[in-house]
Amino acid sequence: MRIALDAMGGDRGPELLIQGALSALRENSNFDIVLLGPEDYLRKHLAEQAIDPVFSDRLSIEHAPEIISMHETPVEAVRRKKNSTIMVGFDLVRNGRADAVVSAGNSGATMASAVRKLGRLKGISRPGIASLFPTLKNPVMIMDIGANVDCRPQHLVQFAIMASSCISKVLKISSPRVGLLSIGEEAGKGNALVKETHELLSASNLNFIGNVEGRDVYQGDVDVIVCDGFVGNVSLKVSEGLADAAMQMLKTEIRKSIRARLGYLLIRNAFASFRKRVDYEEYGGAPLLGINGVGIICHGKSNAPAIKNAILVAENMVRNKVNESIVETLKVNPTVNMDQG
Amino acid sequence: MRIALDAMGGDRGPELLIQGALSALRENSNFDIVLLGPEDYLRKHLAEQAIDPVFSDRLSIEHAPEIISMHETPVEAVRRKKNSTIMVGFDLVRNGRADAVVSAGNSGATMASAVRKLGRLKGISRPGIASLFPTLKNPVMIMDIGANVDCRPQHLVQFAIMASSCISKVLKISSPRVGLLSIGEEAGKGNALVKETHELLSASNLNFIGNVEGRDVYQGDVDVIVCDGFVGNVSLKVSEGLADAAMQMLKTEIRKSIRARLGYLLIRNAFASFRKRVDYEEYGGAPLLGINGVGIICHGKSNAPAIKNAILVAENMVRNKVNESIVETLKVNPTVNMDQG
Repeated sequence: MRIALDAMGGDRGPELLIQGALSALRENSNFDIVLLGPEDYLRKHLAEQAIDPVFSDRLSIEHAPEIISMHETPVEAVRRKKNSTIMVGFDLVRNGRADAVVSAGNSGATMASAVRKLGRLKGISRPGIASLFPTLKNPVMIMDIGANVDCRPQHLVQFAIMASSCISKVLKISSPRVGLLSIGEEAGKGNALVKETHELLSASNLNFIGNVEGRDVYQGDVDVIVCDGFVGNVSLKVSEGLADAAMQMLKTEIRKSIRARLGYLLIRNAFASFRKRVDYEEYGGAPLLGINGVGIICHGKSNAPAIKNAILVAENMVRNKVNESIVETLKVNPTVNMDQG
Repeated sequence: MRIALDAMGGDRGPELLIQGALSALRENSNFDIVLLGPEDYLRKHLAEQAIDPVFSDRLSIEHAPEIISMHETPVEAVRRKKNSTIMVGFDLVRNGRADAVVSAGNSGATMASAVRKLGRLKGISRPGIASLFPTLKNPVMIMDIGANVDCRPQHLVQFAIMASSCISKVLKISSPRVGLLSIGEEAGKGNALVKETHELLSASNLNFIGNVEGRDVYQGDVDVIVCDGFVGNVSLKVSEGLADAAMQMLKTEIRKSIRARLGYLLIRNAFASFRKRVDYEEYGGAPLLGINGVGIICHGKSNAPAIKNAILVAENMVRNKVNESIVETLKVNPTVNMDQG
């Protein structure tokens, strides 16, 4: 198995991405890694790090001279920059020279590039982005978190099928509980999209447990939460923003008294464990689901452990044939084939 | 001025609501309070509390024998229970015998009752619910947080006008900064609703600062955030859920070591101040905006300080003539009169 890593993606530069790659190689001997980027530039970076030959043998470079920056318009950038890291990466997958692409770069461009190079899975109208969120119990997979901002009910049912197949394979959950994000638990609550989706999901063979509310996201009593990409993205970013702001407010309060500062010294480790538990970086990137291949996008701010985890998720998805499972589940849920728009 | 309080609303019973009323009377001598509920029942509750005559003179009861429970369907309940606390309250406002209604009961029924008894403000298609959220700086008013789940762009512009007028009067902010909740800062980012709304808000005379993202909600760099009621409600509940879950996770981590437990004892006060700062209860209820009168809904779990604050917000809105300001702002923003649907 070969996993291609966009070595130029993200806000923090290639060193950190290479460190993540090395950690992944160290942890799992199942695959090799192809670094995507300008060859000379990457070769210099690799030379600066004293890499054990055991690992350097499993590490190669695929020359990709162009970089799509975070602020470029995805569709345009993908059209113009044919030699960009992301495009070259999905080309490798198309040609059978790699099995997956991991990128912390422009996520819209990564999605556009994946669809362009690999196409969609048979029966899928709209590929989307799934993400694992930490909860009080097991993580929950939310889909879509930003690829599809205007959705029809059939799209949400397809998200449910894709995320359900993915989490079932990746986290070994048989019959994952699927919830529909709404503003009340009763079937009649929600907007027009949610009400129609509720009917379709009830008729599917998924383990649909009904509507869930925003406050259920972090409780861990549901394995998959389905929503349109606008609502999913807002929920993700509201959560990130609240976590940051709460931490800042708490620190301000602590700084006000010597007693509290002393207390903080004693409590620091518990804080660190807590932060680790809620840190999206521990959850290893967000799979693009619905494309005919495996692609994982990471937060632009990802650190080395986050990149390592994303690579391991990619390996897991390839090994467990998540896409085959999605196609199988689609076949037994004919309602979703009504719409290929 | 007379403010009517639904003494039967909420999950915690009338004692607590009456305590909130007394605190409000103590803090502000500008108004009297009318308690809404079964007369004998409330009279007994009042007798049990030794109330200073200074305050009992400012406290009366309006008999309302029926109660709309939290789980009744709003429109139906309002049609059937004409003598419910909420309906009787808005009747008082319609007849000039009260200036505002505060309720911690069924919020959908409170909205339906307000619209039925008082009607909408001239020019407003859809009344909605606004709510103040704590931030790192001043609170931000988000509208709509749940009354209107399927919106058109004109509705969102009206929410912007209403929330802007309200926060400007209530918190004395001249020219409040208005942001549109989306999934990217650029004007082209968002779903179809947001893109069209962006154009209309840009053409308005509001202080529109463009799109804001979920992570901006708690930063305090915007005074009003506009969104449809589905997205607003999910954001509110995701935030509540995350705050609860984070606190639970942190406590679990702290319990694991004696050192951390000791630290917690020292840090406890800082925690309490922090919790107070992010507590919705401190923010005194959510105004119903767009109705021809003043109505405030409170969380079903509201404690006495939350009820007190809600009553004080009602007093503030009446005194500062928020509704007149909304009507004036509507007049100079003709784009929003295109649609009265």
